[in-house]
Amino acid sequence: MKTKHLLSTALLGALIFTSDIARAADPLPSWNDGTAKKSITTFVEKVTKPGSPDFVPIPERIATFDNDGTLWTEQPMYFQAFFIFDRIKALAPQHPEWKDKEPFASVLKGDVKAALAGGEKAVAALMAAAHSGMTTEEFEKSVTDWLATAKHPKTGRPFTEMVYQPMLELLAYLRANGFRTFIVSGGGIEFMRPWTERVYGIPPEQVVGSSGGLKYELHDGKPVIVKLPEVVLNDDKEGKPVGIQRHIGRRPIAAFGNSDGDFQMLEWTTSGKGARFGMIVHHTDAAREWAYDRESHIGQLDKGLKEAAAKGWTIVSMKDDWKAIHPQEKK
Amino acid sequence: MKTKHLLSTALLGALIFTSDIARAADPLPSWNDGTAKKSITTFVEKVTKPGSPDFVPIPERIATFDNDGTLWTEQPMYFQAFFIFDRIKALAPQHPEWKDKEPFASVLKGDVKAALAGGEKAVAALMAAAHSGMTTEEFEKSVTDWLATAKHPKTGRPFTEMVYQPMLELLAYLRANGFRTFIVSGGGIEFMRPWTERVYGIPPEQVVGSSGGLKYELHDGKPVIVKLPEVVLNDDKEGKPVGIQRHIGRRPIAAFGNSDGDFQMLEWTTSGKGARFGMIVHHTDAAREWAYDRESHIGQLDKGLKEAAAKGWTIVSMKDDWKAIHPQEKK
Repeated sequence: MKTKHLLSTALLGALIFTSDIARAADPLPSWNDGTAKKSITTFVEKVTKPGSPDFVPIPERIATFDNDGTLWTEQPMYFQAFFIFDRIKALAPQHPEWKDKEPFASVLKGDVKAALAGGEKAVAALMAAAHSGMTTEEFEKSVTDWLATAKHPKTGRPFTEMVYQPMLELLAYLRANGFRTFIVSGGGIEFMRPWTERVYGIPPEQVVGSSGGLKYELHDGKPVIVKLPEVVLNDDKEGKPVGIQRHIGRRPIAAFGNSDGDFQMLEWTTSGKGARFGMIVHHTDAAREWAYDRESHIGQLDKGLKEAAAKGWTIVSMKDDWKAIHPQEKK
Repeated sequence: MKTKHLLSTALLGALIFTSDIARAADPLPSWNDGTAKKSITTFVEKVTKPGSPDFVPIPERIATFDNDGTLWTEQPMYFQAFFIFDRIKALAPQHPEWKDKEPFASVLKGDVKAALAGGEKAVAALMAAAHSGMTTEEFEKSVTDWLATAKHPKTGRPFTEMVYQPMLELLAYLRANGFRTFIVSGGGIEFMRPWTERVYGIPPEQVVGSSGGLKYELHDGKPVIVKLPEVVLNDDKEGKPVGIQRHIGRRPIAAFGNSDGDFQMLEWTTSGKGARFGMIVHHTDAAREWAYDRESHIGQLDKGLKEAAAKGWTIVSMKDDWKAIHPQEKK
């Protein structure tokens, strides 16, 4: 065992050494120099500097990230909605009543706008219908299979390539500085867990999301966990601090979002004692991604823009602060 | 930053080196040599040996532990019940109706047996009454303050000294071998989180337990999370695999319990693919702790004893397998 451990220690040393060189060069190469980037590195340096009045012990270095619109694109609609629509279409033959029942009827007609008119509630209804009755293992496979072939309608890329390169660098930078990074998303917890470790380096147990009921059963003597239609956590707005308390059990010191659905998470995080950091990704880049805020039907951002200055939150302009949006455009 | 990182790497190397020496000597010094101890070390060696057909990658090395009766004593009643009874007495003046209402009336009369006659349901009712309406921060303080002065009625020791020395060694041994250790307990999640990191080395985000409703509110502009009376997870029996799926999101490869309340957790864990380990702590030591199983009103163990052999689970006899029960008796 010992040689193995000493070897892994040596490897770890090498990794840390490498990350130090990267950091010495630039921990956030896809971020333009400016107040946003500076506010991140200033915060990380003061909470990690031993003896600093703002020093935070490693166990308390919790950072939470929204997913849709913060770590990956959420336009022209939540990526989970594409998954759900595909499942609803596949399940339609077993549900003739859907032809005359919203939001299902609009989904089957391919009328995305009408299907989403009901907002989060409609999405929840579709989620319940599309997900319930399956075992958690069947559902995980359906997500993995779908991601292997589904493509984003605008870019034609797999959805997991629509992540933001500057945010991948930020996740790695925080972890290299002793932070534990969590996702706290309005998206379905079991929709995210099958791929967040591979794509973001965030393991399933560090993913918090909207959650449905679960039931333990024996099927022909084989234990399974079945997904139920009811919602046990709507992990959005006031639900985000609740999800954080339920899953993490301590208040983060840094939180990252992009919409008013993240307002309470940032408010809860930055109102704690000691050094705190709150950041909002502002979608300002119509050329390279999307530009939307106050009037958007998805990822609406109004209150956050109004109150960010007073609360000391950093606003990131995708257009001005990011050299690249997605990994493929990395300089 | 670099010198700090290289220093921490050196320290980590030293720690691992130390733990290797400990392991070379005996990773479980408070365990008598025998089939129980051997089954633990055999399992850990085969899942951690690179190239072994049973090798399990570090991210999948999840081990879950029941708390009451598995990591610390649960007699003469659940320690959380002592805490709840003390709170009910303190709150009684504001609840005159409790004088004629069970289980409150029995608690106020000091009749523990009658109060517990209602079983888990009565405990849940008392939990809800004693905990709801407080903020999570007020509740955490009430737990910490209580633990600082409360004493076990038989030993006169602080309750956090009533933990099992052999299980502390087992937790450390598993972590030294790349496992992440989680608590999955029927006890209240927010009753455990304030002290599990200090006592067991298990951080709040790795504690799963019975959970009440939470609500995010602003009190005079200050964000708080208020505890509600409803139960959102009864983390016992069929609820344990559900709690594991909800909080961890993957199936453990090892599970440790002591009662039929842990049966489904062990069943779910050990029915997965690849090498799996299930262990039941059997309370057989009337002299040094308590002896109880099939007929006990707390920690009843019947089905587990009947099916352990067929399921390949290890039964640990506290009397025969443990040199010491609590840290103070460590040889």
